[in-house]
This record gives sequence, C-alpha cells and structure tokens, in this order.
Amino acid sequence: MSDNNNMKRRQFIKRAAVAGSIAAGAALSPSVYAAKRFNWKLTTTWPPNFPIFQDGVKRFADDVKKMSGGALNIQVFAAGELVPAMQTFDAVSQGTVQMGHGAGYYWIGKIPCAAFFTSVPFGMNAQGMNAWLYSGGGLELWREIYAPHNLVPFPMGNTGVQMGGWFRKEIKSIEDLKGLKMRIPGLGGKVIAKAGVNPVLLAGGEIYTALERGTIDATEWVGPYHDERLGLYRAAKFYYYPGWQEPGPTLELTVNRKAWEDLPAELKMIVETAAMASNMWMLSEFEAKNLDALDKLKNKFNVQVYAFPDDVLRQLRQFTTEVLNEEAEKDKDFKRVLDAYSAFRKTNDAWSVISEAAYARTQSL
Amino acid sequence: MSDNNNMKRRQFIKRAAVAGSIAAGAALSPSVYAAKRFNWKLTTTWPPNFPIFQDGVKRFADDVKKMSGGALNIQVFAAGELVPAMQTFDAVSQGTVQMGHGAGYYWIGKIPCAAFFTSVPFGMNAQGMNAWLYSGGGLELWREIYAPHNLVPFPMGNTGVQMGGWFRKEIKSIEDLKGLKMRIPGLGGKVIAKAGVNPVLLAGGEIYTALERGTIDATEWVGPYHDERLGLYRAAKFYYYPGWQEPGPTLELTVNRKAWEDLPAELKMIVETAAMASNMWMLSEFEAKNLDALDKLKNKFNVQVYAFPDDVLRQLRQFTTEVLNEEAEKDKDFKRVLDAYSAFRKTNDAWSVISEAAYARTQSL
Repeated sequence: MSDNNNMKRRQFIKRAAVAGSIAAGAALSPSVYAAKRFNWKLTTTWPPNFPIFQDGVKRFADDVKKMSGGALNIQVFAAGELVPAMQTFDAVSQGTVQMGHGAGYYWIGKIPCAAFFTSVPFGMNAQGMNAWLYSGGGLELWREIYAPHNLVPFPMGNTGVQMGGWFRKEIKSIEDLKGLKMRIPGLGGKVIAKAGVNPVLLAGGEIYTALERGTIDATEWVGPYHDERLGLYRAAKFYYYPGWQEPGPTLELTVNRKAWEDLPAELKMIVETAAMASNMWMLSEFEAKNLDALDKLKNKFNVQVYAFPDDVLRQLRQFTTEVLNEEAEKDKDFKRVLDAYSAFRKTNDAWSVISEAAYARTQSL
Repeated sequence: MSDNNNMKRRQFIKRAAVAGSIAAGAALSPSVYAAKRFNWKLTTTWPPNFPIFQDGVKRFADDVKKMSGGALNIQVFAAGELVPAMQTFDAVSQGTVQMGHGAGYYWIGKIPCAAFFTSVPFGMNAQGMNAWLYSGGGLELWREIYAPHNLVPFPMGNTGVQMGGWFRKEIKSIEDLKGLKMRIPGLGGKVIAKAGVNPVLLAGGEIYTALERGTIDATEWVGPYHDERLGLYRAAKFYYYPGWQEPGPTLELTVNRKAWEDLPAELKMIVETAAMASNMWMLSEFEAKNLDALDKLKNKFNVQVYAFPDDVLRQLRQFTTEVLNEEAEKDKDFKRVLDAYSAFRKTNDAWSVISEAAYARTQSL
C-alpha cells in the first residue's frame, strides 16, 4: 500500500507535470535550476528496504532532488552499505557523509540527554513530541546539544506508540520479569533492569535468532507492521501492549554542520521542509498500517495480545522516575533537558486532559 | 511565541545562509533558479492576523518563495481583502485567484461530503485524519470529489480537538439545550438541532456582539487560544469541553486546476511538501499554545471549565449517527465518502485501543 500510494503520488505529480510542460511552454528545466550542484551521501541506521523508515528517507531524498531541480542530489545508503548503523553519528559528525538518519537515543553513550529527542519511557506521544520540538523550544535545545558535535538535527519520522514487546511466557506480575534477558535499548533497559531484567542490546537482524534459541527471553522491537516482518511470532507467542518504553519516538535527520553551512538558503529551506513533511508521512504510514499487520498476527499466526497488568505499569513508571532522577544527577545537560521537557509536558498533559483524552473517552460512552 | 519562534527559525536559516555564501563561493542566486516566474494570489477564509491560521498560510507562502528561489511568489490575502471568506471556493474554482485556504466543511452547501475532509462530529482526531488522508486513500478521494470543481486540495493545518463552546447557562442534561440559539456550523449544527437547538451561522467577527447582546445563547469557536482573543469570556462564563463537533479539523489548501497544471514538476513538489510541513506546524502550534490561554481564561477572567455530562455526549453521538445516515441517503457521494471514512476509522480505532488509548491510560495509573 505504501509503494502503491507513493506510486500514485508520483503519477499525480508526473501526469500534471507533463500537462504542465505543454500548457506552460517554457517550463523550468533542471539545468537552469541551480548554479552549483551538491552530491551528498546519507547513511541510515536501518536495514535495506526496512519499510516506512528506509522508505521515508528515500522519499525525502527524492523530494529534495525534485524540489531543487537536481541541485541537491542525496544518495541514500542503508546501514552497513557504507557505514555501520551505530557509527552513523560519528560519520556525519566527522563529515565522512553529509547526512544521517536514525534516532537520538542510539547515542546516549555519548550524549545521555539525546534520549529526550527520541522518546523516554512514559514520556510524550508523537503529537506531544512534535508540539515540543516545533513550537515549544525543543528543537532549539536539540540543536544546541548537538552543536559541539558538528551536527544539525531535524525531526524526521515517528513510529507512534510502539508495542511493549514479545515474551516467551505470560507476565502476571512484576516478579515475572525477574531474571529475564530482554532485548531493550536505552532508558527503557535501565528502567526494566530495576525489575530484575537483564537488558541486552541487539541489532534488528540478530533478534529473531536470539529469541528463537532462547539466548534472550523477550524483546521489544517496533510495532505489528515491523514485528511481523521480523517473524518474531515464530519465537514467542505473548505480545504485550502498550509500549511504555517508547510512546512516540521521533526519528532524526542529522546534517554535518560544515555541509549545512555550505548550502545556499534555498536548499536549506528545502531540506528543512522536506524533513518536516517526512516526519508527518512516516507517522501516518505507521498509523495506517499497524492494524492490518496486527490482524494478520492474531488471525494467521495465533499470536495472543496481552495488556501489561496495571500494577506492572505502575511500578515501571515509578522506576522511570528514579532512573530519570539518577541520570540527571550524573549529567548536567540531562538535567537541563529533563527540566525543559518536563515543563512543556506538564502543560501539554493538562491541555490533553480536556482535549484529546476527554474526546477519546467519548468513544466508549 | 509564534513570531518569536518563527524569527528564530528565520535567523537560523539566514545566519547559516550568510556563512554558506562565504563558504560555498558560488552559492545559488535567485535569478538563476527558474526560467519562468509565477506570481500567484492566495485568498483565505481567515481574518487578517488571525493567529496560527493566517500565520501558517503566510509561513507556507514564505517557504515556497524561498524554496523556489522566488520562482513561485504567492501573495496572501485575508478574508475580505480581495474575496469574501465564503467565496474562496468559487474564486479558486473560477481561477480569479490561484489558491485558497479554508476548510472543506465551509462548502457543504455545494458538496455535502466535503465535511469529511475537515472533521465530522465524533469523528477522527488529527492523527487519525492525517493517517487517513496521506496513507489511507483519503486524499485521493478528496481530489476526486473536488476535481469537477477544478480544484486540487491539500491538507494544510489542523486545530487538534476543539472546545465544545461557550454557554450562558450550565448544561446539566440534554433538555437544557432545548430552545437555545447557538452559533455552530455544518454537521455539528444538524446534530445539535436534534436536541432542540436552533443552530445559526455567524462569521467570527459577529460572534462576540451576538453573544453579548443575547441574540445567541451559545457559540462554539476554536479553542482557548482563539476564543480568548475574541473576548468570548466577557459574554458567557460556562466553557465546555470536549469539542465533540470538531475533534481534529483539517484545514485545506486549494489550487485552481489550470494553474496547478501550469506549474513545472519542481514547483508542484515544493507546494505539496510545504503544505504538508504547514499541516504539521499548525497542529504543533495549537498543541503548544492552548493551555497557556486556558490558564489565562481561568485565572485572569474567572472562566469556569465544564465537561459535558456523559449523557449529553451519548445522546449527541446517537444523533450524529442519525444525521450521517440521513445525509448518506440524500447524496451518493456523501455515502461513498462516509463508507470509506468509516472503514478506515474502524481499523484506526482498533489500533488506537492498544496504542494511543492504552498508553494514555498509563498516565493516570
């Protein structure tokens, strides 16, 4: 459906473009569009053909190329094709490539507070994140934090609320988590460690085998659409919601600062606008596609979908507060970003109580 | 804060642009950007300086101009400056102006099903609307419906969940609505008419006086940020939520088909992408600014905020089903769009139950 939609969109533009050339006579030709051409490389943290994520990045590059009449030509590489996934940050920072796509929380080893620019456990959902980043000072703060690393970040993509993960046994109480080995990165891992889980970090390609062989007992990944493709249902049958650990992760486009400064204002605006549009597009794709995948998991592969018990969620939430405070004590920037995030979030939550939350309630009256 | 943020953004682009010219040497100059220049007019349905709505349209025009190196120059007019608000559709359709900005449900006199492309009572919220439009076939359907009118529509802006409105007395039961004269347009008006309300249509500039003089007993408008500016709190003290009548209205950019077809592919893509980015920006602004305005209304102007009683909402929801079915019987396209909207919505709701809704619940555990 994505390819199909994308194709329709391209046809819409193309068809109109052909009509346009005839009607307008002197239509623009790419050759007159720019005096200087830029050939850039973008490396992502995603496997090749990783749906929505990698699609969204390619769509962004296509849009930029088209909008700039070919003046900014971005070649997209998947993880490992040019740069290993977890070296994306360094490669863009050093200018080996001009652009990268991934998620801020992959770099918390270097910049602990980068987690806030993706998602923190029990944090804001996609709508809240976008409001904070675009209209609440979040993006300015993000740019400040990334500046010493020669990176200019842009929000670009969001998965919406993720799933809580796959377990090989039922989780009835917080005690059932004790001793489990679970693939869960970042702050989510630190939080669940307080419940006695041993959190491990594995790249997407390694998860299935580890779960199937029992090297790990549980894993979180993304949501139904991506989890189904990874075949995780063949290795674990208990599928939990909601994704308390990642309630609306923002993906990031990073641009090397020197490369960014070399761009003329027109191309800067094209990059910024295309990233914002891709941000919207990716979330819409997730929202539109997760349910069909979930139906398939349930009806074709007999997956059981479970809600985490309230008590488990309540305790994980308490652990989250502890972890955030501990991290804030260790790192000044973490505290600064936590404070800014929390202040915005408090306001946003209070508005949600009488808007989104109150409205959602009417659906079950 | 909007102007401030916008200014910061401009400075960010400009500062980098100056650095860029020095670094790159041969930076693009606008004069080489395009062989043909387009000078277009855009008329909106909003009053001049109407915050977020009119700001968002100006921002869009600025972005397009900058991205195209001045090849597409869009001059923005507020309602009445060139074309009266409610003649926007006709003006763009006839090509008097090339572009318009407003909301589909303003045109339900001509195209009853246009309501679905904005918002219908008890319908999808902003996130659901975007998923439907961009990734669920909604936009294709919208373009098909507008095609006979020579209009090409684009989603551009969303207010999020609105407020339910201002009343001069408390609403304790559905009976309390009987006999009230209320400013409430479109399908919301038809629904509430079933509760005995006399719905009237007034432009923004007329509402305050009508409410203050008692010509009307109640009104809905937008949300705290806009309602406060209109001074409605001086004429009514009961402020109700949630906005069951408009749970996430999508605003529209319309382009005259002939003008659209005259544009070269580069500029088409620039318009499409800038509209998508503006769509995101406007929602983020609403989400970020409503609460401060609400605090001001409550603390400075002693406004009382009330939830509609469950029973009132339940009945209005029942009336909504009746109205939608009645309209579907009268109009083939209405039925067609209702069916497509409902099918997508059913899927989206089912996903929301284990994603957004389940996650929102964790906040009050």
